[in-house]
Amino acid sequence: MTTATSPRDLAHPARDQIRLETVLHALSDPMRLRVVRELAAADGEVACSYIELPVTKSTTTHHFRVLRESGVIRQAYRGTAKMNGLRRDDLDALFPGLLDTVLSAADAQAARQGTA
Amino acid sequence: MTTATSPRDLAHPARDQIRLETVLHALSDPMRLRVVRELAAADGEVACSYIELPVTKSTTTHHFRVLRESGVIRQAYRGTAKMNGLRRDDLDALFPGLLDTVLSAADAQAARQGTA
Repeated sequence: MTTATSPRDLAHPARDQIRLETVLHALSDPMRLRVVRELAAADGEVACSYIELPVTKSTTTHHFRVLRESGVIRQAYRGTAKMNGLRRDDLDALFPGLLDTVLSAADAQAARQGTA
Repeated sequence: MTTATSPRDLAHPARDQIRLETVLHALSDPMRLRVVRELAAADGEVACSYIELPVTKSTTTHHFRVLRESGVIRQAYRGTAKMNGLRRDDLDALFPGLLDTVLSAADAQAARQGTA
């Protein structure tokens, strides 16, 4: 985990610190999976407020932190906004095909449930 | 979840009850991921005792139950042995490529760590 030197400096694992089990755990929550799907669809950095989840703000913050600390997303402050983006390059390098397979599986499941 | 009518009748989710998030959670534990890798390598049913984990028997039983209840494995009694097999057909039908991608990612991670 990189050291956070100020409150606005967010800690991220380096690529070689990202663990498959931790990534799978980060993806195993419906709200976090929804965030990842929206970030994948956005294809770039988006503000936390861009993604609306049916949970409290503190729970949303928690989910984003789990995603960041697992290495699934990168978070950075830009002025007053906290911006988020998928660490696709890192994940694809470490676990080829995993992110896309999970995203496809999530799409297929949503389609079966009529919630796509 | 199918109803278990006797203590030797183990409850399994039907294919259409298997949820992606639950499967990812089942796979997100190092011991459970190890079980899945061994079952994939065995390519058939094996007894619980075939897979040695560095945890207590009750913890091992717990991990197998999580895998069964998530739909990742099928367990059945054969005489006095509890046999285990991957539900590859169900998982491949629901989430094409997911199981193989996770297994490949686990192999790659083990190779990087020199624990393959």
